[in-house]
Amino acid sequence: MKRIGKQTLEFETPPSILAAAAVGGKKEAEGPLGADYDQTFQDTTLNMESWEKAEAQLQKEAVSLAVERSGFSSKEMDFIFAGDLLNQCISSTFGLLDFQIPFLGQYGACSTMAQTLFLSAIMVESGAARRAVAVTSSHFCSAERQFRLPLEYGGQRTPTAQWTATASGCAVVGQGGPVEVCRGLAGKIVDLGVKDPANMGAAMAPAAADSIFQFLEDTGTSPCDYDGIFTGDLGLVGSRLLRETLRENGVNLEKVHGDCGLMIYDRQRQDVHAGGSGCGCSASVLCGHLWKRLCRGELNNILFCATGALMSPTSQQQGENIPGVCHVLQLKTRQQPESP
Amino acid sequence: MKRIGKQTLEFETPPSILAAAAVGGKKEAEGPLGADYDQTFQDTTLNMESWEKAEAQLQKEAVSLAVERSGFSSKEMDFIFAGDLLNQCISSTFGLLDFQIPFLGQYGACSTMAQTLFLSAIMVESGAARRAVAVTSSHFCSAERQFRLPLEYGGQRTPTAQWTATASGCAVVGQGGPVEVCRGLAGKIVDLGVKDPANMGAAMAPAAADSIFQFLEDTGTSPCDYDGIFTGDLGLVGSRLLRETLRENGVNLEKVHGDCGLMIYDRQRQDVHAGGSGCGCSASVLCGHLWKRLCRGELNNILFCATGALMSPTSQQQGENIPGVCHVLQLKTRQQPESP
Repeated sequence: MKRIGKQTLEFETPPSILAAAAVGGKKEAEGPLGADYDQTFQDTTLNMESWEKAEAQLQKEAVSLAVERSGFSSKEMDFIFAGDLLNQCISSTFGLLDFQIPFLGQYGACSTMAQTLFLSAIMVESGAARRAVAVTSSHFCSAERQFRLPLEYGGQRTPTAQWTATASGCAVVGQGGPVEVCRGLAGKIVDLGVKDPANMGAAMAPAAADSIFQFLEDTGTSPCDYDGIFTGDLGLVGSRLLRETLRENGVNLEKVHGDCGLMIYDRQRQDVHAGGSGCGCSASVLCGHLWKRLCRGELNNILFCATGALMSPTSQQQGENIPGVCHVLQLKTRQQPESP
Repeated sequence: MKRIGKQTLEFETPPSILAAAAVGGKKEAEGPLGADYDQTFQDTTLNMESWEKAEAQLQKEAVSLAVERSGFSSKEMDFIFAGDLLNQCISSTFGLLDFQIPFLGQYGACSTMAQTLFLSAIMVESGAARRAVAVTSSHFCSAERQFRLPLEYGGQRTPTAQWTATASGCAVVGQGGPVEVCRGLAGKIVDLGVKDPANMGAAMAPAAADSIFQFLEDTGTSPCDYDGIFTGDLGLVGSRLLRETLRENGVNLEKVHGDCGLMIYDRQRQDVHAGGSGCGCSASVLCGHLWKRLCRGELNNILFCATGALMSPTSQQQGENIPGVCHVLQLKTRQQPESP
């Protein structure tokens, strides 16, 4: 691989996604992308005793499905990069225990799917791994009680608030699959002083603008070169801010921009206010909906730009800002060899 | 790089540690390795308003020192791999914000230093980075109140309990430094059913045994081939269990084993019960004491095996076990070119 521009990596023999799987809860099944989930659960406890164990189970289901579809066994996976929003990433620990794959835990808040996929691609291209697994999850109920209020409290949500997706997405990276990871950029931590935890979109938009702008500059490309530029979980407020910021810097996203947080739910009908969020949101949109569209050739060259808000209830209570981060990956369908 | 055996990576043009720095608190300064810290703070608040902000400051100090000593600027660092024990890894976020280095957050509990160093080495060897930074931290006061009890409560500690180090260690990885990262192994999650959060050593020992055994098997080496095999934070109880387990499997560690958790404090004099722990413990022992001994040529070929207990107060309250993980790195001093 080689570095291009200031911050971008270009894969020279691009690793590819061999298989992917998305699992989700009831609300996700009822959303506009419901049909693209590989498995959904009407009962979001997944028959487990706690929301945390239910979330771990989501990861387990997603990994089982994706690994099975890759045609390899879990023993043939050399690393698993996994993360989630729970304290000390316990959904990953308990969800992945049984697979016995060398484990490297990741934390990038809602940007984690792009981070795990980026590192998996680097491992494969460098020869460090034959195959690597990237997975993340989130669960509305485990996130609400950890980050906000007890569910039973029934607190009002502000119009800028986003709904944490109950979902998990998993991708198996190797060589020879239908969708290549061509380039990637790891973002810097960006802090423009947003402090409102009910407005994560605004907190993450500056990081998304910074990383997307840098990626386009490093690669000498413009938005119209892509079939779609999909941000993770900016929601309505963050998406508007992102487009506005980039427009002011001479980059027009209007025709190609989609946001996983806006795609996953029907905002009006499903009462999710500014849209979806959570590690599992962009992960399941990528590994369900986008993966299927790439495999069908409806999309051939996209940017996946997952964004994360780097905060905790403690940092909030201590008056800290909410910095954001955004990692960018370029995914392309593999060119078929021309017939002779 | 190439894969050897089942789980080990061997670097073919080994990346090296260009510079390292360790910072610590009052207790660490008073311990047997006090002189090997690059900076210590008598006031462990570091003049910050909270323990969490003090911990972030520890990371900031460690990174500043290590980057400065590498002879490069922070702009010349292509990635930073960082993690800590706090919920959502906020010490890393707020400690590293100002450096503006592309950030990939890691979570491996007390194994995080080995994880960040392993990934940094892979980035450099593969050409993904010219230089990468590995850093972790922990703080006794931020950890106690998050994982155990309010400090003011003055709870009794059991004899098997370990003392979370107030410390941070940082290593800058590139090419041409004095200590090479030759081989590495990422561990699997190992769970033998330990449930006592006041006995982390016992929870982590099985993972250490698993990873060290596998590394020796993959590389065809035995403990006597190394000047030292240093585990991270097993403490007294975990260290005994590790040696016993490996002895039963035909591997005798006695003459070469050291444990960062036992080295960092004088157990009797400093009243730390079974020893030290926390991400900052093995990180600061590696980047302070061991780094200096390697640079002086007192050690030339060692294994650094940081161990982590993958749990949270929530998983504990829900009756889950405490699984462990251990990552192994082989560090060698660079062979000087023979004089003609």
